[in-house]
Amino acid sequence: MKNIWILAAIQLCVASANASLEQTCMSFDPTEYLTNTTLRLHEYIRANTTISLPGMDASCSRSKQLIPTDVCRVALTVPTSNRSSFIMELFLPDEATWTGRLLGTGNGGIDGCIKYEDIAYSLNHGFAVTGTNNGHNGTGGKDFLGNSDVILDFSWRALHMAAEAGKTLVEAFYGKPHDQSYYLGCSGGGRQGIQAAGLFPEDYDGILVGAPALNFNYMSAWRARFFVLTGAANSSGFIDAATWEGLIHDEVLRQCDDLDGASDGILADPNLCVAVFRPEALLCGTMNATNCLTIHQVETVRQVFSPLYGVTGQLIYPPLAPGAEVDATDRLLSGSPFPYSVDWYRYAVYNDSSWDPASWTINDIAPADEINPGNARTWPSNLSPLRDAGTKLLIYHGGADQQITGFDTERWYNYLSTQMDATSEELDDFLRFFRVPGMGHCGDGIGAWQIGQNGAGANGTLYDAEHNVLAALVNWVEEGKAPEAVLGTKFNNDSAAEGVALTRWHCRYPLRSTYLGGDAALATSWTCR
Amino acid sequence: MKNIWILAAIQLCVASANASLEQTCMSFDPTEYLTNTTLRLHEYIRANTTISLPGMDASCSRSKQLIPTDVCRVALTVPTSNRSSFIMELFLPDEATWTGRLLGTGNGGIDGCIKYEDIAYSLNHGFAVTGTNNGHNGTGGKDFLGNSDVILDFSWRALHMAAEAGKTLVEAFYGKPHDQSYYLGCSGGGRQGIQAAGLFPEDYDGILVGAPALNFNYMSAWRARFFVLTGAANSSGFIDAATWEGLIHDEVLRQCDDLDGASDGILADPNLCVAVFRPEALLCGTMNATNCLTIHQVETVRQVFSPLYGVTGQLIYPPLAPGAEVDATDRLLSGSPFPYSVDWYRYAVYNDSSWDPASWTINDIAPADEINPGNARTWPSNLSPLRDAGTKLLIYHGGADQQITGFDTERWYNYLSTQMDATSEELDDFLRFFRVPGMGHCGDGIGAWQIGQNGAGANGTLYDAEHNVLAALVNWVEEGKAPEAVLGTKFNNDSAAEGVALTRWHCRYPLRSTYLGGDAALATSWTCR
Repeated sequence: MKNIWILAAIQLCVASANASLEQTCMSFDPTEYLTNTTLRLHEYIRANTTISLPGMDASCSRSKQLIPTDVCRVALTVPTSNRSSFIMELFLPDEATWTGRLLGTGNGGIDGCIKYEDIAYSLNHGFAVTGTNNGHNGTGGKDFLGNSDVILDFSWRALHMAAEAGKTLVEAFYGKPHDQSYYLGCSGGGRQGIQAAGLFPEDYDGILVGAPALNFNYMSAWRARFFVLTGAANSSGFIDAATWEGLIHDEVLRQCDDLDGASDGILADPNLCVAVFRPEALLCGTMNATNCLTIHQVETVRQVFSPLYGVTGQLIYPPLAPGAEVDATDRLLSGSPFPYSVDWYRYAVYNDSSWDPASWTINDIAPADEINPGNARTWPSNLSPLRDAGTKLLIYHGGADQQITGFDTERWYNYLSTQMDATSEELDDFLRFFRVPGMGHCGDGIGAWQIGQNGAGANGTLYDAEHNVLAALVNWVEEGKAPEAVLGTKFNNDSAAEGVALTRWHCRYPLRSTYLGGDAALATSWTCR
Repeated sequence: MKNIWILAAIQLCVASANASLEQTCMSFDPTEYLTNTTLRLHEYIRANTTISLPGMDASCSRSKQLIPTDVCRVALTVPTSNRSSFIMELFLPDEATWTGRLLGTGNGGIDGCIKYEDIAYSLNHGFAVTGTNNGHNGTGGKDFLGNSDVILDFSWRALHMAAEAGKTLVEAFYGKPHDQSYYLGCSGGGRQGIQAAGLFPEDYDGILVGAPALNFNYMSAWRARFFVLTGAANSSGFIDAATWEGLIHDEVLRQCDDLDGASDGILADPNLCVAVFRPEALLCGTMNATNCLTIHQVETVRQVFSPLYGVTGQLIYPPLAPGAEVDATDRLLSGSPFPYSVDWYRYAVYNDSSWDPASWTINDIAPADEINPGNARTWPSNLSPLRDAGTKLLIYHGGADQQITGFDTERWYNYLSTQMDATSEELDDFLRFFRVPGMGHCGDGIGAWQIGQNGAGANGTLYDAEHNVLAALVNWVEEGKAPEAVLGTKFNNDSAAEGVALTRWHCRYPLRSTYLGGDAALATSWTCR
């Protein structure tokens, strides 16, 4: 009875047309509605203010953010157990601007970094937005050590609690419940979206997932393998970035670019390249002493583009996609251990800070997945609860992803299809997966990678259901119009001011981007088959 | 001194123009030159005689053979140890017909069956020809049990000794040495050819190898796996032949036929299909209750087209090629254990007649290859002795081979290339491998499979270096003109009388048969790239 009175009072307050957003904001006390939380910050932000982000760990490389709209910001500390909590940010637009939509943002890697850029992007389109540090701060995983509650927060708990908290606070703030709830995340954030889809089908009405870190324990093993496979920079099989870029990538294009019929540098389906690429073509042999690969290097390349199998003879993880090799030299092919895998093994799997990534073998695969810290695996076999809840799941994955191979998302799609005994036509009702040829990890690349997946991915493009996956998801959820394909854009030098370099329809799996002839830079030269 | 006299006498006898082949034949005693052998048979055969083959085991399914030319036939028993021997047949044409060429024929499976049809084919083109039972009789491997000498004969010894014996006897019979020595064999016989190439580079000047049973222990494991994978006909995941043919094969074509640009039912490169084929498209789902696959069946199909990996995480053997599934229902997909694998495991690997093929797991892979009975593995890493001996090795493999996947021959080629640090340009000097799209195991199929690989493969086609791989090999060895491509033919209903259905240039690996446009049935519509 008391709560109803409070809600009514707030409602009255918000309903008052004279109350400015600032006043509403500063008089709003979220800890009244979430009584076990602590207020960290409370501020009104004018449009086009660059805010500082003092609470962020330096490793997050985010010190400031331009906020595009007038907004009320509150930050809370939300306890999740007696030894864990997460930081939650909530950005609330003016009621007149607010679309009635609430959106949760995810994280990345194994990090506890709030993606303020995704918050800004969503604010720009009228969403009330939440973000969390996912239960720990910074890009590393040291906080997992000896604290399974922190791992649980990372795996799903922080996001789930933020989804529920966000709904409570939105209703309290605006005096009416949200209309629709969305999620947007990529990479580690993609994994979070799939976890939500599998574990909490009621949390969102629409989920936008990019490059999901599915099969997280296996993925961590796969990423750990690269250092063992390439060796450090002084190893005999190691290949430096210049050789990947100047020699091997050219050979990938020589052997594979035409497989889709268009010599445009983009592999429409890198699966086709995996099947036929022969690094042996680069062997030095006895005739060619320069601009070629040694035997060991050829073996390295073949392994890089080969799947990972474990001791049971079962496929663990598919290969890096040809076409991703240049960007992969930053991390997977750098000759250094992949930091997220190191931290996952050290602080979540083995609880051993001294675990040596150079010691990794395929015998380290099964333990990681058997322990399955925090149930972070993320490999759901049945999404019928999600389907039955009416939630729509829109997934995209770059064909040239240099950190999480898109082949794994294809694999999961097929696994899900089989486990649910659901044809693609049936899955299409609630789950659509779009492959984006030539897109890197969550964005960038030589393909038509701008599809509105985030601020950078929308910059200069139209916010409509054709060009923008967020708008497409909203349209699907609210109008029932499911996206058949997504029209991506690539600008010259990734700058809208320099003009459109190419457009391309991205197809929903299992359809493939198929060249019809004509100017390969035009979307009309391609179809989905 | 005595031997020289005898040779001189024989020479005189053969040189006499009046001496008929029959007289020469009946006065020729091979045991004079191979003193530890026993004469089994000695006869003169007139052209177009159908001879009976009384010594052949019934399991060989060869009871008679039409002999196309006047020929002298001798059969010997050749001891190889105090507990092993092989039967050797030698067919010697009239001196006027003889081209000076000697040809050895191989066997098949794990059998001890002389391929009289290959003998007849070679006689037709003026070769003196040998054949052996490879050290044991019939198609089974029971004779391997407890007798490693029989396995050694099977692995390489019978063929090698026959090559040497053939040379001795030819010189004795004609009074002059042979000019060039050749080998022709497919499947198990292909393996024998590669063994000879690796172990005895001087045995032949030209080796013609089809669909070689390379990596024999791993291949035996791979074949053993299918029964475990499909289960018997009453298993839940089992798929009957009608479904493979009427449903799955159609779906393979629907998804893959166009990948080469030509909708002709032939997969120009089945690798491309392995990479993208989704059996999940055939799931029954909830909408389609007929003409579809159950979950278990979809998993079976996915495994059939997946590679075999072992407990070390290493690739053991590549998958069955899509396109081969219909013909594979005869054996690999029949729901019965593959007999050669059963016998290899029982009588050669485990020496246990009661070994149960249903018990096979990936743990049975390593033991087979560690024991490596008779060194039958056949996976040479260095053929430079063969190259240095000037021997030419011509290999072909059907793209729709339903018993030995052609992917394994590609894999070996790439392995050899890396191990020798030899580019394809360098390998081309002495080894050329031609992939034949749409050819089954050693022949047959919907592709342009007639390339003179044996009598059936030459029937109705021209015997020249363009159309016929045997003629091409001779041309390569004797004229130094290496085949760039092989022009295959497919007749309507495989009958020359019914006219040519299609012709196609078959490309030497790693070049790929590439459609240029136009009538896909014409060789001119394709090129090698």
